[in-house]
Amino acid sequence: MMNLLIRNCRPMGGAATDILVEGGRIAVIAPGLAAPDGVAVEDGGGRLALPAFVEGHTHLDKSLWGMGWWKNEVGPRLIDRIDGERAERKKLGLDPARQSDRLAKEFLKRGTTRIRSFADVDTEIGTAHNDALVALRDRLRGTMDIQVVAFPQSGVLVRPGTAELLEQALRNGADIIGGLDPSGIDRDPKGHCDLIFALAAKHGVPVDIHLHEPGELGAFAMELIIERTLALGMQGKVVVSHAFCLGDVARADALYAALGEAGIGLATTAPPSRPVPSVKKARAAGVSIFGGNDGIRDTWTPYNMPDMLQRAMLIGLKNEFRRDDEVELAFATVSDWAAEGCGFADYGLGVGARADIVLLEAETVQEAVVATPPQRVVVSHGRVVARDGVLLA
Amino acid sequence: MMNLLIRNCRPMGGAATDILVEGGRIAVIAPGLAAPDGVAVEDGGGRLALPAFVEGHTHLDKSLWGMGWWKNEVGPRLIDRIDGERAERKKLGLDPARQSDRLAKEFLKRGTTRIRSFADVDTEIGTAHNDALVALRDRLRGTMDIQVVAFPQSGVLVRPGTAELLEQALRNGADIIGGLDPSGIDRDPKGHCDLIFALAAKHGVPVDIHLHEPGELGAFAMELIIERTLALGMQGKVVVSHAFCLGDVARADALYAALGEAGIGLATTAPPSRPVPSVKKARAAGVSIFGGNDGIRDTWTPYNMPDMLQRAMLIGLKNEFRRDDEVELAFATVSDWAAEGCGFADYGLGVGARADIVLLEAETVQEAVVATPPQRVVVSHGRVVARDGVLLA
Ligand SMILES: [Zn+2]
Ligand SMILES: [Zn+2]
Repeated sequence: MMNLLIRNCRPMGGAATDILVEGGRIAVIAPGLAAPDGVAVEDGGGRLALPAFVEGHTHLDKSLWGMGWWKNEVGPRLIDRIDGERAERKKLGLDPARQSDRLAKEFLKRGTTRIRSFADVDTEIGTAHNDALVALRDRLRGTMDIQVVAFPQSGVLVRPGTAELLEQALRNGADIIGGLDPSGIDRDPKGHCDLIFALAAKHGVPVDIHLHEPGELGAFAMELIIERTLALGMQGKVVVSHAFCLGDVARADALYAALGEAGIGLATTAPPSRPVPSVKKARAAGVSIFGGNDGIRDTWTPYNMPDMLQRAMLIGLKNEFRRDDEVELAFATVSDWAAEGCGFADYGLGVGARADIVLLEAETVQEAVVATPPQRVVVSHGRVVARDGVLLA
Repeated sequence: MMNLLIRNCRPMGGAATDILVEGGRIAVIAPGLAAPDGVAVEDGGGRLALPAFVEGHTHLDKSLWGMGWWKNEVGPRLIDRIDGERAERKKLGLDPARQSDRLAKEFLKRGTTRIRSFADVDTEIGTAHNDALVALRDRLRGTMDIQVVAFPQSGVLVRPGTAELLEQALRNGADIIGGLDPSGIDRDPKGHCDLIFALAAKHGVPVDIHLHEPGELGAFAMELIIERTLALGMQGKVVVSHAFCLGDVARADALYAALGEAGIGLATTAPPSRPVPSVKKARAAGVSIFGGNDGIRDTWTPYNMPDMLQRAMLIGLKNEFRRDDEVELAFATVSDWAAEGCGFADYGLGVGARADIVLLEAETVQEAVVATPPQRVVVSHGRVVARDGVLLA
């Protein structure tokens, strides 16, 4: 059992105190604690202590991290990216097991211990990416929590055989069923939503649907998702990722309210280049909204870092969060709200929570968000697992 | 005279080579150079070599950097920020000399050697901020190039006495005359533009006008600026900063063309939260467009870092630059185009240019932009001035 005493740290920027961890959980938070016999002591040096971060939407399986710079010459359309990716991953010999392991550890180094990752499932690669991620999830248990979403990146109805592969991915251990642009990619919004929700009901798993569709088209798909969530009693089990339509449709307020009533969460990457859901409006309607990088240095995009503080910064900038009480909301999207929205248990810096803690040089939570200090000590399950960018054994 | 041999670096991500610096300028670029007697040698270790960065729009004088975290509780309107700042700087005892020196050095550590900075001029502080920046500029000559813009942050016509103070600031050594929202703040677009351009003509200095005004109001102010630029023959001497109207006005294409014909440049911070000028459209019309942070950790905003690679990343994300040839444009906005737009001479990695060079761990220029590696060696005028975040004597 992991026991640890962290001395002299400042949880969420408050007064300096000590944190005693017993059996991998936070047992006592109080200043001047004595170290029980044989318990390792970590000197916090007055640093800020934050709950370890949560990545709510990424694609561990297809990052090119560490493979040498890949020259992006892809066309501008969504379909260019989808088709280009299938072609490139063969050419590059992208190994999803190696790449997902590599990127998960880059996340861990920078303080993230809980990740929801999509895994491509299609008629070329079958369930190979999914199975690699399931194996990684099981191997890293005790250090990181990874949720695997079986994800039809190339469509379902437009690629016969994909539905069966998605079901196989669930049988192979995927935690969640994914969907994608019911109209834009699958050309059959009713058919796509019926199929995805039927798989969810049959296997008793949550749903997480990529919805890039703008304006009224996206709003229509959202209505279909809301209807099925209510019909199946899946409140609290459904997430819409991206949901760009909420950033540009006139009746967004009614949609936020409906999402809140249906207990549907939203994952946002807050891309600077397009309209996105509003964190404040979502929360006001009772919608769990949380942050994610989406792909990191892959054939879709060269950007993004396995650093949830950088994502919080981008979410804060996008939402024009300037005041301290607002910047704190940006941090919540990569911490409390992401744990809540993804269903990661035992989260936080309270007594009883799992001792997943990041120590870093910053005066306040807000400074951590805007400065993203690179030097961090990462504690997972009460064990120091990384220090200043280096993973410990 | 500063002589230096940088061995084994890769200019702009090309093949490994050596760079010989003589008298502070790049003299030879070729592999396998012998070190002349007594010349210091810097081992590039195969790292990427970039021209040192250019900050095209910031406010060195009012950053709170290093003063302890300031709790932002400011209201949401532009005028809340302007009025709040005047009140807070007194309360905080903000010393513009100390703060501008501090922030300039943070820029230098991270690889920026040329900066255009605004300096507040108003009826409360007079020319104190301007004079502090002028003194800093003169003191840092030989290490950094700083351009000082005398800037009426609280308006000119609405605050009698400000015009005289602006003129005093120019007599005290300011390089450029600034303006601000001719309608939104000064309530008299013709009067404001006439006054600013008259000062420019009288003192023979360039103009840089903050234009936050959206839509047709901003477009109208832009027309007034274009008319005066042409009438006074000030092509190449005028910059419009922000120019948000270009991001949301229907006739933007005609405005880009008119700006190009008038030789007017654009400074952009590319804020994720609002429409901005398009880098590609500006360049296509022959408009010099370049990047800047605007304020860094001040009473306006907690965000932004004295790191032009982070700014390039934000400009790239905002402009949806994904392909390698596009990400290179994002880098140009904080390097070549910023030097061109601000009029900083002797710029670049060519033979004859001033030897202001950054070495960092990245395979390509694109990787430098997306990863913003914190470890850098900074060379200014042929001298190594900073290494891994530490300034050398
Ligand atoms: Zn995604
Ligand atoms: Zn400014």
